[in-house]
Formats: sequence, structure tokens, C-alpha cells
Amino acid sequence: MRIINPAQIEPQPMQLDGAAGVNFRLLVGRDHGAPTFAMRHFTVAPGGHTPPHRHNYEHEVMILAGKAIVRAGETLREVKPGDVIFMPANEQHQFKNPSTTDPLVFICMVPVTFDCGNGSCQPTPGS
Amino acid sequence: MRIINPAQIEPQPMQLDGAAGVNFRLLVGRDHGAPTFAMRHFTVAPGGHTPPHRHNYEHEVMILAGKAIVRAGETLREVKPGDVIFMPANEQHQFKNPSTTDPLVFICMVPVTFDCGNGSCQPTPGS
Repeated sequence: MRIINPAQIEPQPMQLDGAAGVNFRLLVGRDHGAPTFAMRHFTVAPGGHTPPHRHNYEHEVMILAGKAIVRAGETLREVKPGDVIFMPANEQHQFKNPSTTDPLVFICMVPVTFDCGNGSCQPTPGS
Repeated sequence: MRIINPAQIEPQPMQLDGAAGVNFRLLVGRDHGAPTFAMRHFTVAPGGHTPPHRHNYEHEVMILAGKAIVRAGETLREVKPGDVIFMPANEQHQFKNPSTTDPLVFICMVPVTFDCGNGSCQPTPGS
């Protein structure tokens, strides 16, 4: 087995266009032997956000600290620690940290591969 | 999207032989449209434990509260809130709550199907 704590991993800035103040740690991924899905840890600085985007794979998220405004399509919902979000594939989505003082922390699981639309599978970015 | 908090779900006792004091909530699963993996929430009462068992699919776990003694094969490790455990397929494993006062709480993700050994896939129990 692998046991890891997020504090043991150096955070990396999320490089996607439109991301602001988002750091990322890969907790369990393909390089650790994960065959089906990966677990990633995100920290969003006060006022920061992930980019609004969509992709052909789902997210499963649990909020660990802070609060988030989650956008899915035209829907906005505020979520708190302990809340879980299932974001289906192909739904436009964004996570924003509305706080001016506290970071938003969450884990986000994704499949390690996805159907890239031409009948073949690709490794999921960040998995 | 689906937003859910564990407190909104009635816990169910884990029915596996050898489980003691284990309650279970399905947060995101096949019935919610999860295509690849499921998220489950477990509470283990003080002194309780999951059964020692193995299966042909992996676990990805994050400890949320309390502490656990995790057995993998002959290895025993103590883990605390925020720690993440990747338990590969086919490794004998068990989660015990060594506390006499506090519950152990964790989430455990599994693939929604697994290779049941005769060349076909079955739905993963509890997904």
C-alpha cells in the first residue's frame, strides 16, 4: 500500500488558462499504480478560481476546508467542508473561492483515462 | 451536478462477515450516474473494524476524523486525518479503530466494476 499526506508533496501551480491561485498535488495517480482513477488535492487562494471548462470525464470532489462557489452550466451553489460534488462528464464547471481570507481546499478524483472523442482513450491530464 | 453531504444520508451497517461497528453511506455511485468509480463514507465505532479481506479491485481512502490502524498483508500502519491510503487490488487489508472514545471516519473510493476472474466484469459491491 501507499500512505501519503498532502503535506509531503510539493504543490504545483495549475497551468490551465484561466486558473488563478490554484495549487495542485497528485496524491494517487498512474505513476503510483492507480489503475482506474486518481486522487488530486487542490488549494485555491482567497479570490482564486479554477478555469471554467468542460471535458469528457467526470469529477468526484470533497470539500476539505474553506468554502466554494461551484458553477455547473448556469447553476451556482455554495458548498462547505464535508460536501461532495459529482460533476458529470461534459458539464461546464468552475470552482471559485469567495473568501478574502481563507484558502479553499478540496480533493478531486478523476478516471485515469478518458475517451478523447475519436474512439481512443488518452491519459487524463493531472492523473 | 449532484451535491450531497454525508449527514443527508441514512447510514447502513456494513454486512460483511467479520465487520464490527462499521456504518456505510454511498455518496456517489452507479445509481447517481457515476461511470467509473464510487465514493463511499464509512464510520467505525471505537474498537470497531472492517473485516480482513481482499478483492480484485483497489481502494483509495482519505481519513477524515479519528485514527486508524491499517493492515496490508503483514504490515500495520497508524494513520490520521488527512492521510491517504492507496490499497492495490488483491492485497489483504483491514481498517481498525484503536480509540476507546472517538469514531474513525473515512471516505473510500472503488471502481464501479471489477474483473471477477472469469473474464467478465461485475458491479463492485457497495458502489
